[in-house]
Amino acid sequence: MGVNSNRVEDFSSHRINTESVMPGIEIHTVCLSPKKTTLQKLKQRLSEIFFPDDPLYRFKNQTWRKKLLLGLQFLFPIFQWAPEYRLKLLRSDIISGLTIASLAIPQGISYAKLANLPPIVGLYSSFVPPLIYAILGSSSHLGVGPVSIASLIMGSMLSETVSPRDEPIRYLKLAFTATFFAGLFQASLGLLRLGFVIDFLSKATLVGFMSGAAVIVSLQQLKGLLGISHFTSKMQFIPVMSSWSWQTIVMGFGFLVFMLTTRHISMKRAKLFWVSAAAPLTSVILSTLLVFCLRSKTHNISFIGHLPKGLNPPSANMLYFSGPDLELAIKTGIVTGILALTEGISVGRTFAALKNYQVDGNKEMMAIGFMNMAGSCSSCFVTTGSFSRSAVNYNAGAQTAVSNIVMATAVLVTLLFLMPLFYYTPNVILGAIIISAVIGLIDYQAAYCLWKVDKLDFLACLCSFFGVIFISVPLGLGIAVGVSVFKILLHVTRPNSLIMGNIKGTQIYHSLSRYKEASRVPSFLILAIESPIYFANSTYLQERVLRWIREEDEWIKANDGSPLKCIILDMTAVTAIDTSGIDLLCELRKMLEKRSLKARLSPNQSHLALVLTNPVGSVMEKLHQSKMLDSFGLNGIYLAVGEAVADISALWKSQPDFPEDCNETRQCKETRR
Amino acid sequence: MGVNSNRVEDFSSHRINTESVMPGIEIHTVCLSPKKTTLQKLKQRLSEIFFPDDPLYRFKNQTWRKKLLLGLQFLFPIFQWAPEYRLKLLRSDIISGLTIASLAIPQGISYAKLANLPPIVGLYSSFVPPLIYAILGSSSHLGVGPVSIASLIMGSMLSETVSPRDEPIRYLKLAFTATFFAGLFQASLGLLRLGFVIDFLSKATLVGFMSGAAVIVSLQQLKGLLGISHFTSKMQFIPVMSSWSWQTIVMGFGFLVFMLTTRHISMKRAKLFWVSAAAPLTSVILSTLLVFCLRSKTHNISFIGHLPKGLNPPSANMLYFSGPDLELAIKTGIVTGILALTEGISVGRTFAALKNYQVDGNKEMMAIGFMNMAGSCSSCFVTTGSFSRSAVNYNAGAQTAVSNIVMATAVLVTLLFLMPLFYYTPNVILGAIIISAVIGLIDYQAAYCLWKVDKLDFLACLCSFFGVIFISVPLGLGIAVGVSVFKILLHVTRPNSLIMGNIKGTQIYHSLSRYKEASRVPSFLILAIESPIYFANSTYLQERVLRWIREEDEWIKANDGSPLKCIILDMTAVTAIDTSGIDLLCELRKMLEKRSLKARLSPNQSHLALVLTNPVGSVMEKLHQSKMLDSFGLNGIYLAVGEAVADISALWKSQPDFPEDCNETRQCKETRR
Repeated sequence: MGVNSNRVEDFSSHRINTESVMPGIEIHTVCLSPKKTTLQKLKQRLSEIFFPDDPLYRFKNQTWRKKLLLGLQFLFPIFQWAPEYRLKLLRSDIISGLTIASLAIPQGISYAKLANLPPIVGLYSSFVPPLIYAILGSSSHLGVGPVSIASLIMGSMLSETVSPRDEPIRYLKLAFTATFFAGLFQASLGLLRLGFVIDFLSKATLVGFMSGAAVIVSLQQLKGLLGISHFTSKMQFIPVMSSWSWQTIVMGFGFLVFMLTTRHISMKRAKLFWVSAAAPLTSVILSTLLVFCLRSKTHNISFIGHLPKGLNPPSANMLYFSGPDLELAIKTGIVTGILALTEGISVGRTFAALKNYQVDGNKEMMAIGFMNMAGSCSSCFVTTGSFSRSAVNYNAGAQTAVSNIVMATAVLVTLLFLMPLFYYTPNVILGAIIISAVIGLIDYQAAYCLWKVDKLDFLACLCSFFGVIFISVPLGLGIAVGVSVFKILLHVTRPNSLIMGNIKGTQIYHSLSRYKEASRVPSFLILAIESPIYFANSTYLQERVLRWIREEDEWIKANDGSPLKCIILDMTAVTAIDTSGIDLLCELRKMLEKRSLKARLSPNQSHLALVLTNPVGSVMEKLHQSKMLDSFGLNGIYLAVGEAVADISALWKSQPDFPEDCNETRQCKETRR
Repeated sequence: MGVNSNRVEDFSSHRINTESVMPGIEIHTVCLSPKKTTLQKLKQRLSEIFFPDDPLYRFKNQTWRKKLLLGLQFLFPIFQWAPEYRLKLLRSDIISGLTIASLAIPQGISYAKLANLPPIVGLYSSFVPPLIYAILGSSSHLGVGPVSIASLIMGSMLSETVSPRDEPIRYLKLAFTATFFAGLFQASLGLLRLGFVIDFLSKATLVGFMSGAAVIVSLQQLKGLLGISHFTSKMQFIPVMSSWSWQTIVMGFGFLVFMLTTRHISMKRAKLFWVSAAAPLTSVILSTLLVFCLRSKTHNISFIGHLPKGLNPPSANMLYFSGPDLELAIKTGIVTGILALTEGISVGRTFAALKNYQVDGNKEMMAIGFMNMAGSCSSCFVTTGSFSRSAVNYNAGAQTAVSNIVMATAVLVTLLFLMPLFYYTPNVILGAIIISAVIGLIDYQAAYCLWKVDKLDFLACLCSFFGVIFISVPLGLGIAVGVSVFKILLHVTRPNSLIMGNIKGTQIYHSLSRYKEASRVPSFLILAIESPIYFANSTYLQERVLRWIREEDEWIKANDGSPLKCIILDMTAVTAIDTSGIDLLCELRKMLEKRSLKARLSPNQSHLALVLTNPVGSVMEKLHQSKMLDSFGLNGIYLAVGEAVADISALWKSQPDFPEDCNETRQCKETRR
């Protein structure tokens, strides 16, 4: 810390100087952060990156036995709430569990269809995963099962390569393998504490993406609702007019209108949530009865047909880890996995915030990941926390994850005994259920809000919307993430810089253009740079600062002000600097020095000193490491703009004949040492 | 501006309150930026993005005729310096022009060989492009011609697909077409003012990239120096031992040592720059004489052979804009173009800074781009400003771009009359010239400096170094840019936040961990967030802030401090916010409110108010647009931390029985309105 103590010494001798000229102003020196070794810094940085929430803080200062219990609770949250579970809660959990089961059964069958899978897989997926989530998950309100977006994406990505109609077994194998990799990816993100990866799907992106996906799904299902069947061969898309059946159309739209109406009612009055929650099952029952009664009169309405009774068959033997389809399975797994994760985590957080408890993102990822890995071995496809089911769960008064167990039990009963009842369930009703579910994803109000608040966010939203609709789901998503990242980079590449002025009677300095109370300080140009200084913006900032100086010179000439003598760069908002940024400061200094040398020859241009104020810890450290601190010398860095102005003005007054020597001579001394 | 004036009114009534309690502290209100329409904002933003240097400022307030002249000078910088050109300068320009010609001729031949092109193309490329640059370029010291990196990359990318030995014409066509696209790409970047694209090649990246490329080139040329010839067929790489010739080895290493020695001498003494500048030509002359004298005795040394006399033949007919090779040509053009541009611009800037004039990046890009487009029609390959030639040019005393014209003239004379002299020039000397040129690119000192100052920059440097060596040149470059961008994103994803304390006797608040003079303010938790709040970090920041609160609570419990009542978020360094960021603030408020509600029931937890200080202009605007400003209410936002602490403390003292109502009741009023 040689430099630092040196500076403090030099400084105190200087302070006496100042005080004699300008009493009452105390000047503070800028500190370096406490010294740390590279290893300590690395450790701190890594712990900030991977453990921002300090997940092990509960373990501190505990007995060995308590630690073991805490560890068990940490790994399996069920041990956290199960011992405290009381029968009083069971009633609410049973009610909410049965309510979401009534939603989960028709949705499960429908979403399986959306993923081009046999309907029974949807029911399997509503049985095993909720049970596993109940053990591993930390949210009390998440309703687990297949969701529309992930099902759609899995279906569209897989059926591009493999036709589910022509090669059903290969398709099924692909779907289970993709589910396995989705789970593996999710669990690894959680284990490696890389949860922030999903943060790059910004809300704006998701609004656009969801809406786009909803439009695609709706159009696709509308085709079914209109009773149009098309040939699977890719080139032919001619609607077979003869296959139209008015009975299908009437039934489909009738029940769609019914479900949309119930949805509207529930949205108007939160207490009537059960109206929309019960609507799908009611529709299924009514339409099945209808088809059953009319079965002799009409043959145009297609229905599900035979579904096998019984529990989930094991499917571990259907996973494969080699072969030409592996790449497709991994790709599909990652895309669906990341989207399922985003939905699950954000839904979990939403309802946790409503009840004021916290959900640990990384732990949730592991729970969802293991749930999918287990699911892929028991004939399930991708599942996650679903918004619609969680909302119903929450409104129905769910208290703990027991509601998921109740739901799974209800599905179990269905699987074991009630499957024949679905024989006459018309396919068209599944389409209606899907449409009524996804239509809520088209969130034009959120899009309008984005437009109002942030135009670039709105652009990202539009990009993902049109990308999904017109290009493809994974590419649309990629484009949207690209736009979001570009937005960050644009802000870094073209940072804001502004002139500051003093607010009279205070030590506060603020933007001249924003605060009318702020006024220029004669002979000073105070610039605030509002961004880290990086390679990506150092060239820009150099040009911009030189332009500020040029414009200030012009302003002074026009207004006959006192000539510019000192440039203060306020570094408060410069939260980081890299080697290019340090080079920029170096270059700026040199340029201003050259100008000063010229100034001695021509009287038109004045000497210009460059001073920094309030560099943050990491910037100060880098300045020190790169020896820039020495070259700036003692009078080059101040703690606050006010102190810099006061001190430098005092220095000018005390040495009226050598205003140029402000920091130049001292710097020479430093380098000569 | 209803909200704002409302706030100002409310505020003044409140100030009276405060003053009665705590005289002497004047509280300032936070302003919104002056109101602008979306179109005005867009215009300002675009002009900051594309015209940061305000390139047309010279045109303001000028007569029509003057404007025309300025426009001409703007487009063709030659009109700027040519009228002021005096004979006095000519002498320096001729000396420096001849000096760089002596370097350019051997380098041109060598670099053409590096790009697998006929040696004569290297000379052509040292004739037309310098002339065009003299008209369009704004640097006085740039020595223009082929450069090693761009030649290497063009050679390696093109010869992956087309063998220069088996299909020389196709290869030549590809090279000219790639040069055309490189020029087109460069000129478009300049025209569209997208020059910041090259800023994404950070210095760290370039250090690694250049070193890696230098290692590859050296190894490749070393093969030639050892006299090993290998089969062009890709699979066979067996050195043919019989083709070794000791004469080649001796001559190659002899001259390599000679050139490296001269380089060392020139580096030690800048005045002896001409020693290394003249070395390549001397080596060429000496080695040619040697081979000429020994031609009857040894047949092992391969030499250049016949070179056609005469000026650049037109090659516009060799460009093509369709066919299967087009994609390769465009790809090669873009990669070489961007690298050539980076070198040219940075070299131009370096020497401009030494003489204290400015180089307009976008104009330079257009100059280099047009130079390459014209070059591609006159049998030239990619050219740009070369570091070695520019340094020699600068040291030889070049005053204007006339030195480039002199050099071109010298090359012209060579092309017209001196070509037969190169008949016996041994190929091995070209390898020696290339090695001695690229060895300076291995900048281990810069790499060490990166390691010292910024570990992540060093990582980017290593990535590009090993990427170029072990993967491929374009992929290595891509990886390096990826690492640089990742570094920016990492900083955004995991921003710094810290607790601030008051420096006694001042209104300055600073990091507690850095400043020992700073001390905690009882009942307040003052957090500074050092980053924009984006979708990419809002989740992290929420967790981090809650952890700060938890830790503060623990600290208070352990130290028996006064309970936490107010959390101040200092937004000075939050230079931007997006919709997710606003949601974060909203969530935080809600969470703290919920805690406050609990606090009324249990005496252990205190009420917590959330207050923002000093939001910058753009953040303030977004808070306003999203109605967050209304919900924060009047006592929720302050101009400075000091004012917030003073005002809130005063409020607590004046209303000791209702500390909870600090901003809650007011907010309720606001929302009820």
